[in-house]
Amino acid sequence: MLKLSLIGIGCGDPQQLTRAAIGAINAADLILIPRKGSAKFDLAELRRTICAEVLTNDRTRIAEFDLPVRDAGEEDYRKGVDDWHDAVAATWSRQIADHLGHEGHVALLIWGDPSLYDSSLRIAQRLDPLPKIDMVPGITSIQALCAAHALPLNEIGGPFVVTTGRRLRDGGWPAGVDTVVVMLDGGAAFQTLDPKGLQIWWGAYLGMPDQIIMAGELAETGPRIVAVRRAARERHGWIMDSYILKRRS
Amino acid sequence: MLKLSLIGIGCGDPQQLTRAAIGAINAADLILIPRKGSAKFDLAELRRTICAEVLTNDRTRIAEFDLPVRDAGEEDYRKGVDDWHDAVAATWSRQIADHLGHEGHVALLIWGDPSLYDSSLRIAQRLDPLPKIDMVPGITSIQALCAAHALPLNEIGGPFVVTTGRRLRDGGWPAGVDTVVVMLDGGAAFQTLDPKGLQIWWGAYLGMPDQIIMAGELAETGPRIVAVRRAARERHGWIMDSYILKRRS
Ligand SMILES: C[S@@+](CC[C@H](N)C(=O)[O-])C[C@H]1O[C@@H](n2cnc3c(N)ncnc32)[C@H](O)[C@@H]1O
Ligand SMILES: C[S@@+](CC[C@H](N)C(=O)[O-])C[C@H]1O[C@@H](n2cnc3c(N)ncnc32)[C@H](O)[C@@H]1O
Repeated sequence: MLKLSLIGIGCGDPQQLTRAAIGAINAADLILIPRKGSAKFDLAELRRTICAEVLTNDRTRIAEFDLPVRDAGEEDYRKGVDDWHDAVAATWSRQIADHLGHEGHVALLIWGDPSLYDSSLRIAQRLDPLPKIDMVPGITSIQALCAAHALPLNEIGGPFVVTTGRRLRDGGWPAGVDTVVVMLDGGAAFQTLDPKGLQIWWGAYLGMPDQIIMAGELAETGPRIVAVRRAARERHGWIMDSYILKRRS
Repeated sequence: MLKLSLIGIGCGDPQQLTRAAIGAINAADLILIPRKGSAKFDLAELRRTICAEVLTNDRTRIAEFDLPVRDAGEEDYRKGVDDWHDAVAATWSRQIADHLGHEGHVALLIWGDPSLYDSSLRIAQRLDPLPKIDMVPGITSIQALCAAHALPLNEIGGPFVVTTGRRLRDGGWPAGVDTVVVMLDGGAAFQTLDPKGLQIWWGAYLGMPDQIIMAGELAETGPRIVAVRRAARERHGWIMDSYILKRRS
């Protein structure tokens, strides 16, 4: 029998690792570390650091492999994602077959928490044969953002929405809430909102040595974030950022 | 100078503690452990266990104290919460003054993550003198729920709402989303929804030895959850549960 663990590792700071995650890393026979193209920021580096820091089981093997590239030419977004998930599942299968065979315990180190805007679980469910899958929770970028700003996420007893930059741009302010968390935003979609009465708490590279945070009235702080974001992205060659918007009710 | 750390400890399983949380616990001069009335489940016990397991700094003192009781007679909900926050802040101040004086590092162990439906940060901001406050993220019950069910929280690129039982009962299904997380629900508010096309993933005592999870079509599984929930609450004398609802889009 094959077992697959999706282990949340937090979103940049190895101190965000839980005791359960450290235990799961050391319980694995094989840890798969995907490599992306060279241009893009390589999360493989943090994964290597984590293994170096917490892996004490010398029977655990680590295998690095190149991720297939998503077909940017595919016009149907859903189909593009679908094909890519199939391709990644095939790559995982090959790695597992090569390094482990038909039984054993394989682990993947998942950025943040495996349940939040992450495709690993959906990919794992395409594996053939289907392994027994377990998930180890990890600190999400939402929690890292709140902690960095010492900000309560919700208002007292109030609801909030978590959404993507694309949705915010296309759909505007979500109905029925005064708090919105935005992730996966490549283009500072908050610029498309009427900033009146809105406040923003923004953070990039959260938990990493280069963490940047900014907060204030959206009307005044928004344009400054756009400038800082552009400069940071140029300097690093990549950026990962998230933000929370609140509307005075 | 006084420093106050709000340390997320996860929501029931001491294995959810992060390395940062363990570090922060050991960096404190004083750890405050609040006790609630005896009838209610006493989260103090898990906090004691955690300190026993991970505290290695023998200069760190632990002080237990009784929390003031919320005035259930106060009809204005906001005012009731406000008064209670003031009373808790006064209690914290007294403990800090008694055990630490005017300087040092005090810590509170916060259930789950300190940013999510938790009043500690708002209480801390009422302290006089105001300490320097920092927050250490912790695993939330939302993540524990998803991990227990091996469930992706969001649909691909889709938004979700996090809300309370009270809101769900009063406001119905939130606009604009197909995924809803419900917390702080004393009365199984999902019963007030038309169950057609809805699925539920429910969990109680997540991460604890008595964890219970159930999932399925709301129409069929909802009534079973109500029965299991009632029996469990009677057996334990208390319950903490959360659930995710998804609508087929
Ligand atoms: C594919 S999602 C993965 C989310 C991850 N599973 C989590 O739990 O946070 C990537 C998005 O997460 C957010 N993110 C992840 N790490 C971040 C970090 N260190 N700083 C700021 N945002 C981050 C950004 O919004 C980014 O676009
Ligand atoms: C006052 S809120 C605190 C939430 C906490 N800060 C967190 O991050 O999960 C309490 C609510 O959290 C949820 N909760 C907390 N711990 C839980 C557990 N172990 N199992 C199920 N639900 C839990 C329940 O919905 C409960 O009503």
